[in-house]
Amino acid sequence: MSTDDVERFFRDCPADDSAASRVQTFLKRQHDSTGNLTRPVVCVTSGGTTVPLERHCVRFIDNFSGGTRGALSAENFLQAGYAVIFLHRRHSIQPFTKGLPSGQILDFLTSVLEPDEGPQQGVHVTESASELVSSCVQRAQEAAASGTLLRLPFETLFEYLKSLRAIAETLRPLGRHAVFYLAAAVSDFYIPWPQMVEHKIQSAEFGEGFHLELQKVPKMLGVLRRAWAPEAFIVSFKLETDEGLLITKATNSISKYGVHAVVANILETRKEVVHVVRPADTDNGGRTEIDRIARGQEQFIEKPLVDDVVRLHHRYLTAA
Amino acid sequence: MSTDDVERFFRDCPADDSAASRVQTFLKRQHDSTGNLTRPVVCVTSGGTTVPLERHCVRFIDNFSGGTRGALSAENFLQAGYAVIFLHRRHSIQPFTKGLPSGQILDFLTSVLEPDEGPQQGVHVTESASELVSSCVQRAQEAAASGTLLRLPFETLFEYLKSLRAIAETLRPLGRHAVFYLAAAVSDFYIPWPQMVEHKIQSAEFGEGFHLELQKVPKMLGVLRRAWAPEAFIVSFKLETDEGLLITKATNSISKYGVHAVVANILETRKEVVHVVRPADTDNGGRTEIDRIARGQEQFIEKPLVDDVVRLHHRYLTAA
Repeated sequence: MSTDDVERFFRDCPADDSAASRVQTFLKRQHDSTGNLTRPVVCVTSGGTTVPLERHCVRFIDNFSGGTRGALSAENFLQAGYAVIFLHRRHSIQPFTKGLPSGQILDFLTSVLEPDEGPQQGVHVTESASELVSSCVQRAQEAAASGTLLRLPFETLFEYLKSLRAIAETLRPLGRHAVFYLAAAVSDFYIPWPQMVEHKIQSAEFGEGFHLELQKVPKMLGVLRRAWAPEAFIVSFKLETDEGLLITKATNSISKYGVHAVVANILETRKEVVHVVRPADTDNGGRTEIDRIARGQEQFIEKPLVDDVVRLHHRYLTAA
Repeated sequence: MSTDDVERFFRDCPADDSAASRVQTFLKRQHDSTGNLTRPVVCVTSGGTTVPLERHCVRFIDNFSGGTRGALSAENFLQAGYAVIFLHRRHSIQPFTKGLPSGQILDFLTSVLEPDEGPQQGVHVTESASELVSSCVQRAQEAAASGTLLRLPFETLFEYLKSLRAIAETLRPLGRHAVFYLAAAVSDFYIPWPQMVEHKIQSAEFGEGFHLELQKVPKMLGVLRRAWAPEAFIVSFKLETDEGLLITKATNSISKYGVHAVVANILETRKEVVHVVRPADTDNGGRTEIDRIARGQEQFIEKPLVDDVVRLHHRYLTAA
């Protein structure tokens, strides 16, 4: 895989460039009147990318991810004093909504019908859900008021990578104060736009079987690390279903792409245990296990995980 | 494609049988104390089915569908006096939530912080959104109170077809008073469970290209029509992106599977125009165009569409 492949990917990429200006405006808000950065900035990616099979897209390949890890991590980075660019799959879980299942929104709203009864008329949150909803709404309002959360949606692999590049190039002047926390589930194969059929694939065109020809997506991690934002602190993610492959694959990501840490996890246990894998010459031989229960019975593992990443990032800042 | 293929599909199908008992309980509620049916029952399917590529599923093929058509149609069937079984993709759009974008739920809730202020404390819907939300909540509460809406979720093609079969077999005793309104976007190719790999496909295993082998899903429309619920009124859907194919393909569905009507639509214009296609010897040569604007400027096309289907179903009932 060469830089030519990366060039070609972006040349053929159908997504627009709308993210760049929103990121620039957001970034200005993170500077004081004398132009000093007021807080570090993290780009949290979240949810799965889609790979269209037709240009007028009816069918697509998707990567399993509800976006819980990204959404909860974004909350914890805000809590830790970071500005957060939340690059997320459209309609995936948003920060401050965990515990509010979107499909059931009507289940916790209740309508009060009496007219002219002052402030209690209209729609209210049912009493049983009130405490949870109230906490979510308050924290979301705080983040909105402080201007430290930017939500950027994507749908396809094309939109995701184009936005990621725009964010990286915009954050480059921040040097070591920028963090990439790449929790999105990104497809590693796709159909390039020039090869993609125009219309819905007709089932009559295939007999009993159907062959789909996919190509590898150029690896962008190395390009992000070396070219787009060479000083940023980069944390990638590795999700596997086979325990035997997990740590080897995480270690390979470090040696191949030069990322600073890999969060490695197994599909079935990902809410309970994650491994933070680092270069072998760092402490603990470069491997820290984070266990939700062992770490003080946290409700969500993203709290100790983000704490650990923040600790590593601070060390990276002071080592400069 | 033979009934053997259908048998084999269900024999190898990994989904459980949990839908059947919920449908039975729901159906009992649609009968009065003397055992007479109090209203017709429609099964509205909605959203896209997924096709897993691995048993421990990380990647899957999906069919584009937000579920708007199904959700709005379900509302209109309830309005028209039907009991509705809403077989929907989990997290797709729900009845009575159109206009309430799930990701933005926190945008229309506001938290009132003063303590001990009586009923107005807690979380409220912001004033600007209050009318819309209030209408949604009231209609959802009415449906819940009347017990005429059953929401059954699915994720995979396997879960969808297993539930559809269970619903059809449970509704069979209703004869012509049962309607199937099949708006879900169902995959026509898949990987059978016995052939599916256990673990996440490793990108290292494929070189520059990657071949995916998929098989045709046995056509269930004909089986539903002939075997599962032979007297029910069946409306299927056809979504294409190529206008030239649309009506021919809809007409073929009628001759091949014997469905009573096909709702045919084009991806890009599906919210404005649909065609209700019927056997050629029925009125208008079997083709009715429904245009949202021409039909009295309806906000959503699902209102005149469901009106038309209800009219056809009533005619089918009286023709018996």
